[in-house]
Amino acid sequence: MTKHSIQKELTVVKNLIKNEIIEEKTISDLYKYIFKSDGKHLRARLSLVASSINRRKGKKRLKLAAIIELLHTATLVHDDVVDESPTRRGKKSVNNIWSNSHGVLIGDYIYSKAFILMVELGNNKILDELSKATNDISKGELIQLDAISNKEISLKNLEDISYYKTGRLFEAAAKCGAILADADPKYIKNITNCSKNLGIVFQIKDDLLDYSENGALIGKPVFQDLKEGKVTYPFYFANKNANDSEKIKLESFLGKKNINQKTVFKLINDLNGIGETEKLALQYLGEAAKAANLIEDKNISKEMIELVNSAMYRKK
Amino acid sequence: MTKHSIQKELTVVKNLIKNEIIEEKTISDLYKYIFKSDGKHLRARLSLVASSINRRKGKKRLKLAAIIELLHTATLVHDDVVDESPTRRGKKSVNNIWSNSHGVLIGDYIYSKAFILMVELGNNKILDELSKATNDISKGELIQLDAISNKEISLKNLEDISYYKTGRLFEAAAKCGAILADADPKYIKNITNCSKNLGIVFQIKDDLLDYSENGALIGKPVFQDLKEGKVTYPFYFANKNANDSEKIKLESFLGKKNINQKTVFKLINDLNGIGETEKLALQYLGEAAKAANLIEDKNISKEMIELVNSAMYRKK
Repeated sequence: MTKHSIQKELTVVKNLIKNEIIEEKTISDLYKYIFKSDGKHLRARLSLVASSINRRKGKKRLKLAAIIELLHTATLVHDDVVDESPTRRGKKSVNNIWSNSHGVLIGDYIYSKAFILMVELGNNKILDELSKATNDISKGELIQLDAISNKEISLKNLEDISYYKTGRLFEAAAKCGAILADADPKYIKNITNCSKNLGIVFQIKDDLLDYSENGALIGKPVFQDLKEGKVTYPFYFANKNANDSEKIKLESFLGKKNINQKTVFKLINDLNGIGETEKLALQYLGEAAKAANLIEDKNISKEMIELVNSAMYRKK
Repeated sequence: MTKHSIQKELTVVKNLIKNEIIEEKTISDLYKYIFKSDGKHLRARLSLVASSINRRKGKKRLKLAAIIELLHTATLVHDDVVDESPTRRGKKSVNNIWSNSHGVLIGDYIYSKAFILMVELGNNKILDELSKATNDISKGELIQLDAISNKEISLKNLEDISYYKTGRLFEAAAKCGAILADADPKYIKNITNCSKNLGIVFQIKDDLLDYSENGALIGKPVFQDLKEGKVTYPFYFANKNANDSEKIKLESFLGKKNINQKTVFKLINDLNGIGETEKLALQYLGEAAKAANLIEDKNISKEMIELVNSAMYRKK
């Protein structure tokens, strides 16, 4: 397995998704628009890497990757409705171009499309894992919604949210890939564990990128979490280290649409909010790397370590 | 099988759903609130009636009915977000008490819960049918959304919407019940066909009830479809029969929040919008009854005919 061949497979996966022909114009327009976006397809990639241990599963491997991508996309579309995001990956969001209603319904459409393909795949363990993962994702999002403007949120809660809303699908993608490949239990355990922690690293890094001094550098709006009243790691750690007057100042930023980004960044950074978040990410990165090292197939082990590193050291 | 025993089973089904314990408070609050509503559970009932031909499937029959109820409830919660409905069955809607975001996410939570239970049921034909039905429902809702304020909508389109958004789950409920019961193909065909048409009757009747002169009598707001700009059968037929000046008048009502209900009702009724809609409902009722009569089990045949009649002749 080479990185090049996975990349080629991802192109086939994207075509698999796009070729699902839909006769109704609105649905077809929405669908095409959503799947035109060019993301990193990290979750689909993980399922391809995990299943690459058994190449004989050719077509099924690609189908599984398409299913993972569909599930992920459905959550993104619903997320944008929930967060009222005007953009997604630099393009206008569905709820922005069409409406919230379109976002809700096309999300449902894509979810159920994923389930149809899952049933076609015909593997009960995969069905079990993916239906549970989907449930956990919505659970994570609900816990997060409940935590809005809650500056008393615990680190445990924040970590739960990162796991359920992000780590969970990373975990499921790799686990299902390994299950599909009829891999041995040790391989399944290691690649699943690696992916889960990789997903959490990815989420923590996302939270860090949102606290970037300069949004132009990462090509997307920054301080969105703070503006939405969402407490994430940098705020949490800064608040933990703050004295009473700093706490009051921090609280005054939460949920406020007009903030001075430089001032906010300086305060959070001075209170070690950035530093401690990076430290936490490195802990998860360590767990992910340890699990990756336990994977006996050297190519797959190496590929996983690269993915873990790129989740941590990406610039956007 | 008696009606009494199905009623008793429905109570067990409701408890099955309620007993799904959830540790997080918000999720548990939302879940309890949603499943406190006392609907008619028509879809769950249909699956119980259909599967009652083989009572040995005891626990699985109840689980299937719970799955159907969960799927239906998830669509209702998302519908309320889409329609911005302040109420559902006389109680405030989730989006009204909590928020749209809660509605989207708890809907996803309930959907995926249904899929988890479906996987546990372990019947691939049922998984296939229900994942396709879920997809068709969102398709129907999207087509309907696209049709808002479209007074040129065709009768075919309206019938497609009634089938996809309502008939489809009625159809799937009965079909899955019959599949679970290992029934013979003839029975499966007849009860499925009966339920599908019954669902369409139910939807047409819903559209008719929305054009009630007096909302107090049916205990819910009326003329909602018209106010939302949704063309349904009564408007469609009235518009078809209208002369140019009447067409202009009808159009002026569409999507308007403040209308004189008596004036609207009189115009739609005078143009035979109510009469032709009733005629259409009776056609579907005829199809449903014909299929019900072909069911060889006399008890089930009779029960289905009663359900068909009550869908048509209900007062609310």
